[in-house]
Amino acid sequence: MEPLPNQGLDLEALWQSYKEAVNAGGNAQALYQERIWPVLLEKWRQDPPVYPSRQPFQVSIHTLGTSPEATALAILGAGAGEVYVLHTPESARFLSRLRQDTGKDLYPIEIGKSDVAAIYREVKRLLEKHPGLPVALDLTSGTKAMSAGLAAAGFFFQRFYPEVRVVYVDNEVYDPELRRPKAGTERLIILPNPHEVLAEVDALLARELYTKGEFGQAAKAFGEMGAKTGDRRYELYAVLCQMYQRWYDLDFGGAAKEAKKLLGRLSENTWLNHPLNQNRRALEGPPVLVQGVVQPGVFGKPA
Amino acid sequence: MEPLPNQGLDLEALWQSYKEAVNAGGNAQALYQERIWPVLLEKWRQDPPVYPSRQPFQVSIHTLGTSPEATALAILGAGAGEVYVLHTPESARFLSRLRQDTGKDLYPIEIGKSDVAAIYREVKRLLEKHPGLPVALDLTSGTKAMSAGLAAAGFFFQRFYPEVRVVYVDNEVYDPELRRPKAGTERLIILPNPHEVLAEVDALLARELYTKGEFGQAAKAFGEMGAKTGDRRYELYAVLCQMYQRWYDLDFGGAAKEAKKLLGRLSENTWLNHPLNQNRRALEGPPVLVQGVVQPGVFGKPA
Repeated sequence: MEPLPNQGLDLEALWQSYKEAVNAGGNAQALYQERIWPVLLEKWRQDPPVYPSRQPFQVSIHTLGTSPEATALAILGAGAGEVYVLHTPESARFLSRLRQDTGKDLYPIEIGKSDVAAIYREVKRLLEKHPGLPVALDLTSGTKAMSAGLAAAGFFFQRFYPEVRVVYVDNEVYDPELRRPKAGTERLIILPNPHEVLAEVDALLARELYTKGEFGQAAKAFGEMGAKTGDRRYELYAVLCQMYQRWYDLDFGGAAKEAKKLLGRLSENTWLNHPLNQNRRALEGPPVLVQGVVQPGVFGKPA
Repeated sequence: MEPLPNQGLDLEALWQSYKEAVNAGGNAQALYQERIWPVLLEKWRQDPPVYPSRQPFQVSIHTLGTSPEATALAILGAGAGEVYVLHTPESARFLSRLRQDTGKDLYPIEIGKSDVAAIYREVKRLLEKHPGLPVALDLTSGTKAMSAGLAAAGFFFQRFYPEVRVVYVDNEVYDPELRRPKAGTERLIILPNPHEVLAEVDALLARELYTKGEFGQAAKAFGEMGAKTGDRRYELYAVLCQMYQRWYDLDFGGAAKEAKKLLGRLSENTWLNHPLNQNRRALEGPPVLVQGVVQPGVFGKPA
């Protein structure tokens, strides 16, 4: 019985013999293309390494600079049937190579290499074209401006297109001698959305509502955030907003009640370090009689 | 009288002699450090090239991977007095070099090379520490995950910290033979905020308010966007939202009036291609009598 082929070991052995050949004076680039790349590509065709796990993407969008090989791996890693490539006039020459390596029919879209807004616009357009489908946005290749535009679009649009993921091909080991990632250590990484992890989008938007005097809306937003993040800190902001809402509704008794509730919570051991305690004096005024405190200053920092 | 020194020309001549020395068998890296880097650094110390123009940043925050030279240029280009460097355990070894090259006292902050959320959190913390100050976020160096986190944070937080700018060092000419940017063609680029350029943040947030049934808020948001972008398309969405707001306020006469106004505008030559015309039939129902049309589906696509 034949042993199962172990691509990892094959690549390890191949990499050593490749290094030796380069050290013996061989052409690094030509040898890589001849000996390493076909094996690496086959490995990704069969079983691409994806962290934390493979996902069934139906559409993938890639930025393409001068690293077509990494993009080929990203296309195979995402495994989508519909593949869009945002390339520059300079990187257009890699498209046919990319088609050949991945066996996929690509949709090329030309953009300027520093045109952040164009990337944003194209991503928005493509997401609208494929509503509800899982889409991978791959920022592995291209200029920093291109990656920046794709990342900003991806993380932001996740709020409205929750199936979108931002991904890139990283390598665990870089060979400084050969100035290349060590073959076999590459993997497609699916990035977490920083907005979501930290609830910062919601915190800042809720605060924006507050500064606009939309206290009812702000209270609702803070309440939802407390439930979503499990962080009870936000509930105190919700109470603050409710207090102002009552005040503006001319319900002074209700406002005073909310103020008392807030001061009570802020005196609890858990909340002695809550940012709102920095503005305690203004709240004790009594607050509902001092219109001047309806200012963002009282608010402190939401997170 | 001595002619004024012209660094640009000096660098051009230097680059040619450097290339010749490398082609004659010299060590490319050692020769660059000895001949090119001190001159390039001096040029950026005196008069850094910034596109579209230099700005008085007081704080700069940089991601640092294995390109300390580009980050040194970014620090000099931003010209801030207070400089933070988000480095990985691997890139910590470049910090002393960076201090020496820039003559600045840096604040190092260690993060994981794929930890998008950590970058986001640190940027948020630093922006809160320096409210109102002009801050440059430089994504030139570091992994794609690091740049992605910085870009997402920068573009998003601009909404709340309008003095923030996302920047990076690009080069106009890359020397493929030497695998380096041609010295003297580097420049610091200040990126436009794609959210702002396209008003997409506002459009999507306004739409979110609409789908939540917050029609008054949504109408206000669309009205503001029309004024901000100069794009009158948004006004029609504002009218749609006002119509629903009236309906929910049980002001049926007012709702009918808004519906008539909206249909009138949608018949104008300018707006025949407006997305709302795709849902014209639902609006003509008459809309204010058909509660079922209070659905995101009627809305179409906001941009």
